[in-house]
Amino acid sequence: MSDAPSPTTFDSESVWIGFDLGGTKMMAVVYDNELNVLGRKRRKTRDKSKDGVPTERLVETIHMALDEAGVHPKRVAGIGAGCPGPLDLNAGIILEAPNLGWKNVDLRSILHEEFHCHVEICNDVDAGVYGEYVQGAGRGARCVVGVFPGTGIGGGMVYEGHIFRGARASCMEVGFLQMATEGPAAGVGPVGTLEALASRLAISAEAAKAVYRGKAPYLAVEAGTDLADIKSGVLARSIEQGDKAIEEIVRRAAEQVGRGIGSLVNLLAPDVVVLGGGLAEAMPDLYLKETLKGARRNVLPSLRDVFEIKIAELGDYSAVIGAAAWVRQQARQLS
Amino acid sequence: MSDAPSPTTFDSESVWIGFDLGGTKMMAVVYDNELNVLGRKRRKTRDKSKDGVPTERLVETIHMALDEAGVHPKRVAGIGAGCPGPLDLNAGIILEAPNLGWKNVDLRSILHEEFHCHVEICNDVDAGVYGEYVQGAGRGARCVVGVFPGTGIGGGMVYEGHIFRGARASCMEVGFLQMATEGPAAGVGPVGTLEALASRLAISAEAAKAVYRGKAPYLAVEAGTDLADIKSGVLARSIEQGDKAIEEIVRRAAEQVGRGIGSLVNLLAPDVVVLGGGLAEAMPDLYLKETLKGARRNVLPSLRDVFEIKIAELGDYSAVIGAAAWVRQQARQLS
Repeated sequence: MSDAPSPTTFDSESVWIGFDLGGTKMMAVVYDNELNVLGRKRRKTRDKSKDGVPTERLVETIHMALDEAGVHPKRVAGIGAGCPGPLDLNAGIILEAPNLGWKNVDLRSILHEEFHCHVEICNDVDAGVYGEYVQGAGRGARCVVGVFPGTGIGGGMVYEGHIFRGARASCMEVGFLQMATEGPAAGVGPVGTLEALASRLAISAEAAKAVYRGKAPYLAVEAGTDLADIKSGVLARSIEQGDKAIEEIVRRAAEQVGRGIGSLVNLLAPDVVVLGGGLAEAMPDLYLKETLKGARRNVLPSLRDVFEIKIAELGDYSAVIGAAAWVRQQARQLS
Repeated sequence: MSDAPSPTTFDSESVWIGFDLGGTKMMAVVYDNELNVLGRKRRKTRDKSKDGVPTERLVETIHMALDEAGVHPKRVAGIGAGCPGPLDLNAGIILEAPNLGWKNVDLRSILHEEFHCHVEICNDVDAGVYGEYVQGAGRGARCVVGVFPGTGIGGGMVYEGHIFRGARASCMEVGFLQMATEGPAAGVGPVGTLEALASRLAISAEAAKAVYRGKAPYLAVEAGTDLADIKSGVLARSIEQGDKAIEEIVRRAAEQVGRGIGSLVNLLAPDVVVLGGGLAEAMPDLYLKETLKGARRNVLPSLRDVFEIKIAELGDYSAVIGAAAWVRQQARQLS
């Protein structure tokens, strides 16, 4: 298959598929030309009876969503797939996805051979930011930067209607902003990066220490000291229940994320910074307030009034909407 | 005058003016359609007999360059002016230029009324990076990031042939990347920014301390402890003459700039990072080596082989070439 995407014709009957390939869940959604939902299918990424994840499972999931929509596969004009990186965007290949046991999977060819339509592979965070640009918190803005703190801290940018990208791969690795010369590492990678200081994983590690020291009674009962159990939801409930030490840890991390956003604003002057991910969803008010505080500390006076920070609006659907809208946009550009 | 630039027709006889408005020097260069130099005029920004800088002096300088080129002003199809910020790029207004004693100077109208041609006002660093993209170290690259350490640390980006910018103003304030939670301030602004740690001014302050402590004998004789006298050239000579303390200070600062570049690469995945400014020009080998070292420490493995750092090639001419090329590009786009 050539490097160039394969355009197809489309008309008022065309549908567009958004696909989100996550480490635990995959989702396919069928959209009409105006991005109204016609059908969807969501299921676990892994089939427990098998090793790894066969690519057939993706194809099957898309067919299930089409069945639910009552749409014949011939009407599919394009499929946009948000995938974990690293990717070769030009070739449409997933170079490596350790969670799935994948290496060099030519997803574009696989989907193209099945559906004979335009296929765009994009980074899942980029797809999410594009989704927020199309229908969410960054609707229609000239420049939207997305920051998604989770296990790491993902990022993406939509600039004048296009996903900002590297020569072959995605970029905007917000988690790898260098923020300090010292400090903890992120499990992998160098010390002092934003994700080493302020990801959900960094927070969980701090919180586990607080539990171990007897400073977080609610969290001690609900989650204990295992990082795998200390996720955004239980952190939010622990703060609501009065675990002051946990509140302090989360506030500090959010302020660090805000300082990172300050650097991003000084560089990129976005109109909107969209904050997504589990932490921002589980405690939007507290998280937004502290992030804003951190950002204001660092943003240049001339840029202080030109940006907003907003919580993402589309939740789990940002990436499927974004991927579908992106392939639609790319196909229209080629037609 | 309306917000929209005023396009004009142009033909094979057209010329383009690049203008660089610096705090101490101004320069106008006349280019033909292929950006060959036809004439130029460079002089001090200030007329010592007068307070402030009258805008007539700019107009006069352009006329002098046209005279030198033997070109009638009617042949001017466009003027691009690289100016110190903050600017309103849409309106073509210099909002504030303390060095010149200017506030809200509508430079676009002034130049348009005199020359009746297309006028583009742009940030001087952006113009310099665009110049390096057109004819210098970043020639033709998909994405060029420029980093210009001087009194502060300026930056700019050319992405897919266009200057990357904010909604109304320029951006890429590389000097205001937050690099550390503590440390010195930059004279103005918050602590821990890249320019607080690693600008020429930061280096000069460290060097003056070394002189004061008797650790830099050559620099002590040549410059003393006055920051105003410790500029890039004398720093380079002091290192050549064996002032080890100064070498160490410059190496450390260059490595910090490299760490900042590492963050920029993780975010923006440029193909080329162009290093300009007095320090990089005065000691290109040492400066490039240390910056690369710092950048490699922080760049993600997947991005390590996709970027280069190069020393700027056009020196003082980057901004005039860039401004002329930019107005030519914008005028062509409108025609």
